[in-house]
Amino acid sequence: MTARDPLHDAILTGDRRALARAITLVESTRPDHRERAAALLDALQAEGRQALRIGLSGTPGVGKSTFIEAFGTMLTAEGRRVAVLAVDPSSARTGGSILGDKTRMDRLARDPRAFIRPSPAASHLGGVARRSREAVALCEAAGFDVVLIETVGVGQSETLVAQIADLFVLLLAPAGGDELQGVKRGIMEIADLIMVNKADGDLKATANRTVADYAGALRLLRKRPGDPDGFPKALPVSALEASGLERAWEEMQALAGWRRETGHWDRTRADQAAHWFGEEVRAGLLARLTEDAAARARMAALAAEVASGARDARGAAAEMLESLRPA
Amino acid sequence: MTARDPLHDAILTGDRRALARAITLVESTRPDHRERAAALLDALQAEGRQALRIGLSGTPGVGKSTFIEAFGTMLTAEGRRVAVLAVDPSSARTGGSILGDKTRMDRLARDPRAFIRPSPAASHLGGVARRSREAVALCEAAGFDVVLIETVGVGQSETLVAQIADLFVLLLAPAGGDELQGVKRGIMEIADLIMVNKADGDLKATANRTVADYAGALRLLRKRPGDPDGFPKALPVSALEASGLERAWEEMQALAGWRRETGHWDRTRADQAAHWFGEEVRAGLLARLTEDAAARARMAALAAEVASGARDARGAAAEMLESLRPA
Repeated sequence: MTARDPLHDAILTGDRRALARAITLVESTRPDHRERAAALLDALQAEGRQALRIGLSGTPGVGKSTFIEAFGTMLTAEGRRVAVLAVDPSSARTGGSILGDKTRMDRLARDPRAFIRPSPAASHLGGVARRSREAVALCEAAGFDVVLIETVGVGQSETLVAQIADLFVLLLAPAGGDELQGVKRGIMEIADLIMVNKADGDLKATANRTVADYAGALRLLRKRPGDPDGFPKALPVSALEASGLERAWEEMQALAGWRRETGHWDRTRADQAAHWFGEEVRAGLLARLTEDAAARARMAALAAEVASGARDARGAAAEMLESLRPA
Repeated sequence: MTARDPLHDAILTGDRRALARAITLVESTRPDHRERAAALLDALQAEGRQALRIGLSGTPGVGKSTFIEAFGTMLTAEGRRVAVLAVDPSSARTGGSILGDKTRMDRLARDPRAFIRPSPAASHLGGVARRSREAVALCEAAGFDVVLIETVGVGQSETLVAQIADLFVLLLAPAGGDELQGVKRGIMEIADLIMVNKADGDLKATANRTVADYAGALRLLRKRPGDPDGFPKALPVSALEASGLERAWEEMQALAGWRRETGHWDRTRADQAAHWFGEEVRAGLLARLTEDAAARARMAALAAEVASGARDARGAAAEMLESLRPA
């Protein structure tokens, strides 16, 4: 352990530049940065601050940016501090980000009670998710009341975000089945609240019908054990007209409150923390494996042999592990 | 590599005792057994035999044993060889198994074309799944045409079985939403075929209504990309009267055939194989970590600290990894 990091107190006061620097620090792969990041996260964790962490998913075109802008602005107008982070596995490869163009959230980006940060750069999805969890933890330490964690709705990132968030909400367009909307299998399963956007103008009737369809399907297909009746719930919203947002926020708070009272909240947070500890240890062990170029090449060659059907997974793994034994 | 294992040829001829012994061998944790198992699996993999691997889930009381008995007997009567394996995470702790009482499948257990094997003993779910995958591979090498992989429908085991199976089918009772039936979140999402059992006698009308309900919900909620129209599908069956089973089998074959033709089958098998290779390497690395009692105790203590909120996952993981560095 080092002495108290100067970023520590700056973050506690809610200094957004210090927060941004700390997020950059946890994303760094430099060994001295990694050590400093681990110590800082550890020390801030002990402060015990918590925000409401909301995972938000929805495919491009559904109006997610407009929703975040309207929803976030509503919360900041009520005096709440709101952080918006993105988990975007594609940005791991392209360096792009769904939040890259902050002009799409112009008002919120200039709001002193808001903080917007695009997806962390990392070489793979697991890394993106681990660093995103840490960015969320830093936002909590900086005193934000709500942290919105945005995903692009195209795959595995949602289940990883479910390991970070307290609630998971899904934004859909007024239309038929979610296949048409490009929502992947598994995302519907983790949603606590489905919001059908664009419930305004010509689309209002369609949006309300879509809400009824999903409400029916959700009732039939599942309920999370221990949750109050009526969840998961489907609601119409209009990000454009900023309508339905109060209701959506009330539902989120009701569910979060229930989970706090029943102890579900604490259990979930404890499970999530234990999960990420395991992930960090496993990732660290794998990193040692792949830090070495020869080991990396051997791993890839063996994986290809197994995928081609020429070898069995266990035999190939045994060979890999044998090659890693200290001589 | 050792010389060709005597079990190798015995398994190729379909010798069920040799198959049973080989499964016991792959489940063993003795170092010499592990080495022999890896070599045997590798050699048999090169034989290139494939079965249709069907994952089957359903909660207790839905008539799963009766279904397997009727479905399996139908297939063996047509000349097919059928293996039934179970993946039961609870048996990892209790030593019990949903297939433990073979008398529930009396006819199939005595059928020379069938092979029934309960859940492997292992200390945790990941281990159960890895060993189950190997038992399936051994059944394929032994020339079985169909391998039914049964799970208890209570949680994560299904997603692991989805990494083993070519198709996933879900057996439900005639009733309302799956919450009532105890089916956990996520299982509905991976089902290719939902069969509503007990479509006989007084329950026939209810079963048909349940089929219609699920058919509607499935249409609304999702379709697996690349699959033919109409999948996932819901069907009525009666294990008791052995009705609807031919139709279910035809649907399974149609879907499997489609996936073979489109290349989806080969891609999935390759992805699954690569997945298990990664799992084996990670499990091997973790095993080295936990083989040592002091390291194990330290890991547990740090996980508890993280779960309690006293520490951050990364800092605790860094401490754990540091303790593992060779001196």
